Amino acid sequence: MRMRKLKWAEPFLATQSVIVRNCDEMAGQWRRLLNQEELHVEIGSGKGDYWIKMSELYPNAGWIGIEKNVNVAAIALKKVENCEHLNRRFIVDDAQAIDSWFAKDEVDVIHLNFSDPWPKKRASKHRLSHASFLKRYEQILKPEGKLIMKTDNVKLFEFSILEFQNNGWLLDEFSVDYRRDEHPEDVITEYEHRFMELNQPIYRAVWHKA
Amino acid sequence: MRMRKLKWAEPFLATQSVIVRNCDEMAGQWRRLLNQEELHVEIGSGKGDYWIKMSELYPNAGWIGIEKNVNVAAIALKKVENCEHLNRRFIVDDAQAIDSWFAKDEVDVIHLNFSDPWPKKRASKHRLSHASFLKRYEQILKPEGKLIMKTDNVKLFEFSILEFQNNGWLLDEFSVDYRRDEHPEDVITEYEHRFMELNQPIYRAVWHKA
Ligand SMILES: C[S@@+](CC[C@H](N)C(=O)[O-])C[C@H]1O[C@@H](n2cnc3c(N)ncnc32)[C@H](O)[C@@H]1O
Ligand SMILES: C[S@@+](CC[C@H](N)C(=O)[O-])C[C@H]1O[C@@H](n2cnc3c(N)ncnc32)[C@H](O)[C@@H]1O
Repeated sequence: MRMRKLKWAEPFLATQSVIVRNCDEMAGQWRRLLNQEELHVEIGSGKGDYWIKMSELYPNAGWIGIEKNVNVAAIALKKVENCEHLNRRFIVDDAQAIDSWFAKDEVDVIHLNFSDPWPKKRASKHRLSHASFLKRYEQILKPEGKLIMKTDNVKLFEFSILEFQNNGWLLDEFSVDYRRDEHPEDVITEYEHRFMELNQPIYRAVWHKA
Repeated sequence: MRMRKLKWAEPFLATQSVIVRNCDEMAGQWRRLLNQEELHVEIGSGKGDYWIKMSELYPNAGWIGIEKNVNVAAIALKKVENCEHLNRRFIVDDAQAIDSWFAKDEVDVIHLNFSDPWPKKRASKHRLSHASFLKRYEQILKPEGKLIMKTDNVKLFEFSILEFQNNGWLLDEFSVDYRRDEHPEDVITEYEHRFMELNQPIYRAVWHKA
């Protein structure tokens, strides 16, 4: 998601209490902080629709959004500037450090929505489904925890299906045209909306670590 | 593939020496019969383009087509009525008995091209990727043997990806848009051609038994 620098972004973010800044110290504490049993983490939340609407649709779960791009994060948080944030928090940082922010077995579900595809082979380590990320997810997910990916991107999906398998994850659900059915239980993200308008199929998979 | 009965089909087939009729007795003998080291089996060959052209493209492998529908099989064999069949044979029968036609570890590659989807759940046992078929394939495939599936059908593909995984097979290749690249090494089947003209994606996967 390329965009020009927003002058107001950094000062605005500095005032937002929904942002957690001392994430390392929060490991093991998220349930208590949000006062929720079930913990969902979305990596690459972009402009935030999924994180916001899912946390409203499921008020009895905790929702943590992660977005490294300051400008995009600011747009997401602007949408809920005046809201209470009982069951959600946001992290403005690179998810590379995710295994230091969450304790072992702390997370129930990780969501990857329309992650950057990083099509060049030498950049593959940046893909959020690269083996190096899977190792971190494995650490922080409960034994029965799940990872849910949605994408429009053929190559990222093809890569991910093989990468998860080859790192010992098992598919629970698999779809090459997820939105042929409505799925009101699952919010449509900003990117997803765009691809649905173009009549492109949405790929989706759900895995657990075997 | 529904079609009206062809009056000439049965009498024509009765005269075609490319058809093997005593398959049970052939188990363990196919390599010798075809005088080839590598053995490929296509199940549901339909009008035969794949079986015919692949056996021409790869003359140093043996190619066995299987088609249960007498009328469709007759159309396939009509195309090669006057040919020599050094490296190919055809079976006009239901592949349910495939594990009695081939010996343990006899087959290198099984091809499933645009198999009937059998969309109703209660008919799922007829799908050529149903667990009951996978068990038979496992018997006749070499330990390092492969199964290659191509399909246009979203639901059959989704079913198959989970069914193979849950029966202990591993993906070697996986594509949700196989024909975005040309693949001159792999013949386009009759059905495949039709779906490519409609600009529909071709799904493809390659598995081996773990
Ligand atoms: C293509 S956008 C999709 C946004 C949103 N999920 C959607 O579906 O509309 C991907 C987002 O992931 C963010 N992102 C990519 N890698 C990240 C990482 N390692 N840590 C945090 N955010 C990341 C990017 O900055 C970008 O905003
Ligand atoms: C949809 S057609 C596809 C034909 C061809 N493979 C193609 O791609 O153009 C599927 C074919 O598989 C055959 N078939 C389905 N189940 C079969 C079985 N159990 N044994 C043998 N043939 C079968 C059907 O009769 C039909 O001709």
